[in-house]
Amino acid sequence: MPPINKIMNFRSDNEAPINLQILEAINEANQGFEESYGYDQYSEQFTTQCQQLFQAWCEVLPLTTGTAANSIAMALSCPPYGAILCHEDAHLNRDECGAPEFYTAGAKIIPLSGKHGKIDINQLANFLANSGVHGEHESMPATISLTQCTESGTVYSLEELKAIKAIKEQYGLALHMDGARFANALSTLQCSPAAATWQAGIDLLSFGATKNGAMMAEALIVFNTKYTQQIKRLRKRAGHLISKMRFVSAQLVRYLENDLWLNMAAHANSQAQLFKNKTQGKVKLLYPVDANEVFCQLPMALIESLQQQGFKFHIWPGYNDVIRLVFSHATQQSDTEQLINAVTQYEQ
Amino acid sequence: MPPINKIMNFRSDNEAPINLQILEAINEANQGFEESYGYDQYSEQFTTQCQQLFQAWCEVLPLTTGTAANSIAMALSCPPYGAILCHEDAHLNRDECGAPEFYTAGAKIIPLSGKHGKIDINQLANFLANSGVHGEHESMPATISLTQCTESGTVYSLEELKAIKAIKEQYGLALHMDGARFANALSTLQCSPAAATWQAGIDLLSFGATKNGAMMAEALIVFNTKYTQQIKRLRKRAGHLISKMRFVSAQLVRYLENDLWLNMAAHANSQAQLFKNKTQGKVKLLYPVDANEVFCQLPMALIESLQQQGFKFHIWPGYNDVIRLVFSHATQQSDTEQLINAVTQYEQ
Amino acid sequence: MPPINKIMNFRSDNEAPINLQILEAINEANQGFEESYGYDQYSEQFTTQCQQLFQAWCEVLPLTTGTAANSIAMALSCPPYGAILCHEDAHLNRDECGAPEFYTAGAKIIPLSGKHGKIDINQLANFLANSGVHGEHESMPATISLTQCTESGTVYSLEELKAIKAIKEQYGLALHMDGARFANALSTLQCSPAAATWQAGIDLLSFGATKNGAMMAEALIVFNTKYTQQIKRLRKRAGHLISKMRFVSAQLVRYLENDLWLNMAAHANSQAQLFKNKTQGKVKLLYPVDANEVFCQLPMALIESLQQQGFKFHIWPGYNDVIRLVFSHATQQSDTEQLINAVTQYEQ
Amino acid sequence: MPPINKIMNFRSDNEAPINLQILEAINEANQGFEESYGYDQYSEQFTTQCQQLFQAWCEVLPLTTGTAANSIAMALSCPPYGAILCHEDAHLNRDECGAPEFYTAGAKIIPLSGKHGKIDINQLANFLANSGVHGEHESMPATISLTQCTESGTVYSLEELKAIKAIKEQYGLALHMDGARFANALSTLQCSPAAATWQAGIDLLSFGATKNGAMMAEALIVFNTKYTQQIKRLRKRAGHLISKMRFVSAQLVRYLENDLWLNMAAHANSQAQLFKNKTQGKVKLLYPVDANEVFCQLPMALIESLQQQGFKFHIWPGYNDVIRLVFSHATQQSDTEQLINAVTQYEQ
Repeated sequence: MPPINKIMNFRSDNEAPINLQILEAINEANQGFEESYGYDQYSEQFTTQCQQLFQAWCEVLPLTTGTAANSIAMALSCPPYGAILCHEDAHLNRDECGAPEFYTAGAKIIPLSGKHGKIDINQLANFLANSGVHGEHESMPATISLTQCTESGTVYSLEELKAIKAIKEQYGLALHMDGARFANALSTLQCSPAAATWQAGIDLLSFGATKNGAMMAEALIVFNTKYTQQIKRLRKRAGHLISKMRFVSAQLVRYLENDLWLNMAAHANSQAQLFKNKTQGKVKLLYPVDANEVFCQLPMALIESLQQQGFKFHIWPGYNDVIRLVFSHATQQSDTEQLINAVTQYEQ
Repeated sequence: MPPINKIMNFRSDNEAPINLQILEAINEANQGFEESYGYDQYSEQFTTQCQQLFQAWCEVLPLTTGTAANSIAMALSCPPYGAILCHEDAHLNRDECGAPEFYTAGAKIIPLSGKHGKIDINQLANFLANSGVHGEHESMPATISLTQCTESGTVYSLEELKAIKAIKEQYGLALHMDGARFANALSTLQCSPAAATWQAGIDLLSFGATKNGAMMAEALIVFNTKYTQQIKRLRKRAGHLISKMRFVSAQLVRYLENDLWLNMAAHANSQAQLFKNKTQGKVKLLYPVDANEVFCQLPMALIESLQQQGFKFHIWPGYNDVIRLVFSHATQQSDTEQLINAVTQYEQ
Repeated sequence: MPPINKIMNFRSDNEAPINLQILEAINEANQGFEESYGYDQYSEQFTTQCQQLFQAWCEVLPLTTGTAANSIAMALSCPPYGAILCHEDAHLNRDECGAPEFYTAGAKIIPLSGKHGKIDINQLANFLANSGVHGEHESMPATISLTQCTESGTVYSLEELKAIKAIKEQYGLALHMDGARFANALSTLQCSPAAATWQAGIDLLSFGATKNGAMMAEALIVFNTKYTQQIKRLRKRAGHLISKMRFVSAQLVRYLENDLWLNMAAHANSQAQLFKNKTQGKVKLLYPVDANEVFCQLPMALIESLQQQGFKFHIWPGYNDVIRLVFSHATQQSDTEQLINAVTQYEQ
Repeated sequence: MPPINKIMNFRSDNEAPINLQILEAINEANQGFEESYGYDQYSEQFTTQCQQLFQAWCEVLPLTTGTAANSIAMALSCPPYGAILCHEDAHLNRDECGAPEFYTAGAKIIPLSGKHGKIDINQLANFLANSGVHGEHESMPATISLTQCTESGTVYSLEELKAIKAIKEQYGLALHMDGARFANALSTLQCSPAAATWQAGIDLLSFGATKNGAMMAEALIVFNTKYTQQIKRLRKRAGHLISKMRFVSAQLVRYLENDLWLNMAAHANSQAQLFKNKTQGKVKLLYPVDANEVFCQLPMALIESLQQQGFKFHIWPGYNDVIRLVFSHATQQSDTEQLINAVTQYEQ
């Protein structure tokens, strides 16, 4: 069991350890020499797995960060004179220090608002209906990017995705999904990976594994051949071609085997639901709890008390009394229960 | 007198002809051979004029477009990982097809809202107060850009500029003024060029002359040595170093001589005032008429009638019944009066 | 007649004045209001002229500098992960402060050597034959750029162009011609504009007029629809969309009328030939004199003497005793003869 | 023992497995939750180790690829209008698909030649002596980058480094070392890390560990505060900020402990020496064997025979009869000896 400061952590799934099966896969991949730069057996195997999982042809590009996956997706789908439409809270707008602008050589991000971290469909439709008036003076809308799960921990329903797909098709745009927490979303949607992605109009998917148990393993998965041109050169020139790629791909291969990824996500989501259900009436939720994150408003004295008891979490920027709790594959139910007790037993 | 389709034009000061004195200056500059690439006598003279006009040292870079002036200003003051704060309607956000993102190699533009085309000071202050929380994950605020006159035809007062200056200094940011219509603003403010710029905290000024009577002549004027490093290389690598630069600078020299620039701007502003005063009660103004532009709501039948009478103007994007009228150095008072009559005699 | 320091200038065709007919065209274009941003009658007319002149469809983009024309051509034909092959002395490699790298968002320039400023065909063929070995690790050859006339004042023959065309077609590359002095080259080749360009495999032509008598007027002419996508947005986002474009296009229209451009180039070339013929045996030529430039080695005492007599020219970088003489549309034969006399009468 | 196709591999140190001690460190770092994004204990510890190792202050940036380290180094030291001087065979010129041009937003790489993969000092000095003549028209020399060991497997001596340092100081340039195989070079030089780097004028070092036994672990180490501004933002916006950074830094920490890195490099070098010594007279060496790589010319029949016997190596691009042999930390002496036997017993 890890030392005390290594547990009771609800701060981020990025702080969680590696799932032991995935760590084992890394160890097992260390058998002598192996082709470098992505021409190894694991990378090949992962591509096959993805094509089976999504029941479709797809180009698969293993990577080590979600920012790289998002940014290469933007470079593939949005020209320098293009515009990317996304929610204002989207990771690629707020938290990537301008990486999409960098990779696209200066495309413009158009931040849209919308409840619960989801793009407001009417605002999206209106923006597009009014664009093009200024001709070459304005950036050309090229890509819609949505985040699944959103930055507010919510999940777009298949109906909501369908509405965005209709708009994307009307204007001939690319549709990207930032799936840093795709497994958590899929676990909620209870549909096939195909239904949640290309059947819902997704052309490019940033497929995350790191937050859900891997060491450092993400993939850009492209379902539309229109957006795969020279994808390997885009990765290389960004310095994201790992020489010993086998150790990235081996993680991804194990991640998908035997539904490991879905089981881990289901566990994370279940912990969030447990917290939500057991603290009903005690905490004010900011957003629906659709997956593994809970944003809640608490008395400030309770927040301080939780901190003193050793619980770790983020106080949400812009607020004093809102905390974000992230439940992960590694969250122990005993920790969740301890947190529930601390909240429910609090007397104002 | 120009042919009929060349008059009664209130569409844009970009469609106006060259002032005859400036055209004469171009003709006079065509005396035999002359040093190229900006090392001519006119470029030198214009720098001297600017330093006298603004009563301060400044670096002066003649250019042919405002977009180039704005973009080089951004490249000088905002690093690729930086952010530019401006009004959402700012030319550099809406109308330059991503030029600032291009020149800065991917800086992020943060669009702020605000009444009458002016940045809301509280929103600006709040944004900055809350930035920095995410550290390296977020773009670093580097430059505030304001437009004077604004895209709504209004003029920031010296008091408003003072408030922005205080914020800029608090956070150590650069302050840029897009002065495509600087002459019109100055004519309204009735203060010295120094008071309207560097004394108000402006570090970099896009100084426009094209809309106000020149053929193609703008200048980037930098008052702060912190933002002048390799300014000439930035111009050259953008393809904006004109070989026969004398013909740009000769325009600018004449523009400043004998208050020609201010007289032209005063004329343009006076025509807008005339229209505003004579149509009071007949038109609904969207914004205060501070300079040479009028945005007004009219009955749609009147709009159509004006078009049929040969008046040219823009119906404002996003509206059906709002038109923009731009009065310029070349607007003939008889045209203005004809327009006034057409509006005031209209019977609903 | 211009003052004394404005004549006897063999330094650069960029220092020459505007041809009077072109200046007249600028004056004539100043008739009242006119559509801005390139939607004026002159821009339209120039496109028609070009299509007639080149006997082919072409996209025509008026610009104010050759660096902009070259750079937009590179952005159209070479992706960020691509490579541009050109002579090491090419303007776009040596004299544009990295503009092609800027506009392409980081394409790699591969400088090739070759006699007399011309790309060595064997070296070009060898480079391409050996590229592709490293796959995604190397930049993908995309564009060949040649300069006509070259930086050494020579002219590629139609046979030489044919050899490059064959290579371009073999590897599926784009072929660009930097024609800053295209008129001078055409005057030498004595063939049709079509034969010298698209029939010789040229996809994109930087068509220069400034050095040959215009004030500031260049055009990017694209013969291949593959390389015209969003060409106007590329111009706009670089700040090269001139609002009062009519004054650029009016120059270009007049330039092509009544063979003005060819007559001016023929005059410039004839002056260079005159100098070459009359100084035979007195000066050592570095390169064949194919057009309007002469690179020659002279005794250093003679160079000093010429300078003292008021002749202006460049001492060529990297040499002490080599000068470049540029003859232009504005070179007066009396000046040429005075220079010839000064050289031939020199006694060592 | 690995399966047969996993051994007898002299193709690349990138194909070698992870050293077992380093793999153990990865496993040990997987203790519960830990701060993400580089604020973990291992990253801190590695910085301390580096400062002790190099006996100097330095900024330390853990990364996962050498291309990222090189490219961020260029972005820190070379502006977009700048030029990078390096050997034409340098990895950053030949093998990074334009990554340095991408990260610098378009800086120009000036490829220099030189024997044995080393920059020719005279050519470097001459280039710099002749630069600056064209002013803003040419890219400004900003950074010299050298590779240690070179791409030809040679090692710059301290005297050679001293000569480059003098030039760098004369022109006020930054000096970067691509140390993808720095450990191998240091093992050859038998001097302190300080003597081989900052005492030799190195401002920025790409410190490689992957080729020498790590899984994916490199670091950019900057000795000069002039080149550290916003270094973390440069990493983040390139997508190179690994969320679970502890697993990168834990590798680096172990790599430096107990001279593991130097012992591995010494082993690799010794195998190359063994091969060289035992095959003397049998193979023709292209370059001195200074470290762990051997470039040798062999009869083509021998090359085929070696391949048939299961030896893996690269036939060097551009040649038919030259092979590169790379010896690594994981090369078993029995494999080396088997290779030696195969070469020495070959009868023409």
